[in-house]
Amino acid sequence: MTRVLALAGGVGGARLARGLARLLAPGELLIAVNTGDDFRHLGLHIAPDLDTVTYTLAGLEDPRRGWGLAGETWSVMEALEALGGETWFRLGDHDLATHLERARRLEAGETPSRIAAALARRFGVAHCIAPMSDDPVRTVVDTAEHGRLAFQDYFVRRAARPRVRGVAFEGAARARAAPALAEALASPALEAIVICPSNPPLSIAPILSVPGVREALGRRRAPVAAVSPIIAGKAVKGPAAAVMRGLGHEASARGVAEYYGDLLDGFVIDRADAGLRLPGKAVVEADTIMRDADASVRVAETVLALARRISGS
Amino acid sequence: MTRVLALAGGVGGARLARGLARLLAPGELLIAVNTGDDFRHLGLHIAPDLDTVTYTLAGLEDPRRGWGLAGETWSVMEALEALGGETWFRLGDHDLATHLERARRLEAGETPSRIAAALARRFGVAHCIAPMSDDPVRTVVDTAEHGRLAFQDYFVRRAARPRVRGVAFEGAARARAAPALAEALASPALEAIVICPSNPPLSIAPILSVPGVREALGRRRAPVAAVSPIIAGKAVKGPAAAVMRGLGHEASARGVAEYYGDLLDGFVIDRADAGLRLPGKAVVEADTIMRDADASVRVAETVLALARRISGS
Repeated sequence: MTRVLALAGGVGGARLARGLARLLAPGELLIAVNTGDDFRHLGLHIAPDLDTVTYTLAGLEDPRRGWGLAGETWSVMEALEALGGETWFRLGDHDLATHLERARRLEAGETPSRIAAALARRFGVAHCIAPMSDDPVRTVVDTAEHGRLAFQDYFVRRAARPRVRGVAFEGAARARAAPALAEALASPALEAIVICPSNPPLSIAPILSVPGVREALGRRRAPVAAVSPIIAGKAVKGPAAAVMRGLGHEASARGVAEYYGDLLDGFVIDRADAGLRLPGKAVVEADTIMRDADASVRVAETVLALARRISGS
Repeated sequence: MTRVLALAGGVGGARLARGLARLLAPGELLIAVNTGDDFRHLGLHIAPDLDTVTYTLAGLEDPRRGWGLAGETWSVMEALEALGGETWFRLGDHDLATHLERARRLEAGETPSRIAAALARRFGVAHCIAPMSDDPVRTVVDTAEHGRLAFQDYFVRRAARPRVRGVAFEGAARARAAPALAEALASPALEAIVICPSNPPLSIAPILSVPGVREALGRRRAPVAAVSPIIAGKAVKGPAAAVMRGLGHEASARGVAEYYGDLLDGFVIDRADAGLRLPGKAVVEADTIMRDADASVRVAETVLALARRISGS
């Protein structure tokens, strides 16, 4: 039975999930992952955040690049470039095997949930990784310069440079939480819900947009604890600070806490933000940069301890 | 205006097409290619014969293996194998770029004809390569051991070992000839129709199964000349001899001529079959093994000369 539910986006989420997986048995942890960034590309279904979480838990991620697999090769992209094909979204040769295996399973009628579980197993990951939903939800970013852009068009193709003034999650209204997520949210064994240090409006909000998720968090018996993805006013990685500002939020740990509002019981902030007080919320300071697995474990320990403290257990 | 229309399957067809392309200007030759072997694999649309013809005309084919690109690498297949994925159909890294580019264009709504033309251009091929049809036609093989098998299941996965007792072309009844093929068949400039030395029941018959093609050949003003894919009772490559026998035909040059029957005006056979007489058909003997481009040119010259002789021009 799931004791801890982690809501995760890409790199930051994957790094905290890696720590949680070292502390919890496979059956005790569910990592529910944003699929709003998923997209069709070169005829394939690409699920960047699911793959980042899987690769990171398998210890196979490229830590320098922040996406994809370590020791990757690029023969296909080079050939595609020579063909004049679309190469703005870099798909490594080994990473492509994941996408082809996902494509094969999708064509065979398997659900995204089953596929995510199968791929995790294939990569030697014992913990449960689930998409937020088996239904398509697509993050669309409204930008000052180009109007509405598909997420990867904004994020990768345009390197997250356009100014974001709005975010929408197409398909969310008709989406259902993936079976594993719905089950975890209803689990009487649930002791903590952890919001990973992922981009709040772009990586966590899509998960919350799935009907029933925000409501279940509102009714929660288990505390919700987040780790701030913004340290001293800057995102650890990616455009979180700029996006928060673009959407009218403060680009700070406080801004993140205010963004989550009533959903949040506890908040882990970096020591760089020491002194932040949030009325009605338990705040803990820690070193939250997770450069290696040990650092991930320390942050995971901190957030789980905070949840226990809130529960009074 | 098309002067010569070549009907081609995979390797044998590609090799004769390579010779024809050295002798004819781009606008004078249309190579109409079997797409009955096309299939969905790993979420992608694979068109083996079209790619073999394109690679061979580009001079990039692997002559030893008989399929795919020379100098190919296999990173994706190795990663897919490690993932426990399906690797029975070997997709090289460079070859995969072709399939991804085709997939992108298919998703963008381009027709197979447009895509074949675009890929040929990208590979530096000036001559026109067209699918037999833009509609799906799927070759299904009825085997003694396993009943009905999709073509690649029979041909690659089971290495063409099952005994073929029937062949069907699913979708053929509803298919239309691709625009370039329909235009060539109707062209008043047409001087010769060349049936390449491809497997008659498996590679040429699908082209003839497209409504209107066999009929147009029956009404022809231009002569039809074939090159035998069977020499001294053996296929140059592949299962043509066994398939001919399995379908009740003689596995010989004579059997091929009888298979095409009234469609055929002239026939190029190998010197190994010297002495073959076919009532009402012009027969020419030549060295028909096309190990290199020069040999392809010689066979192409022979078949074009034969067509001219038949026309009396």
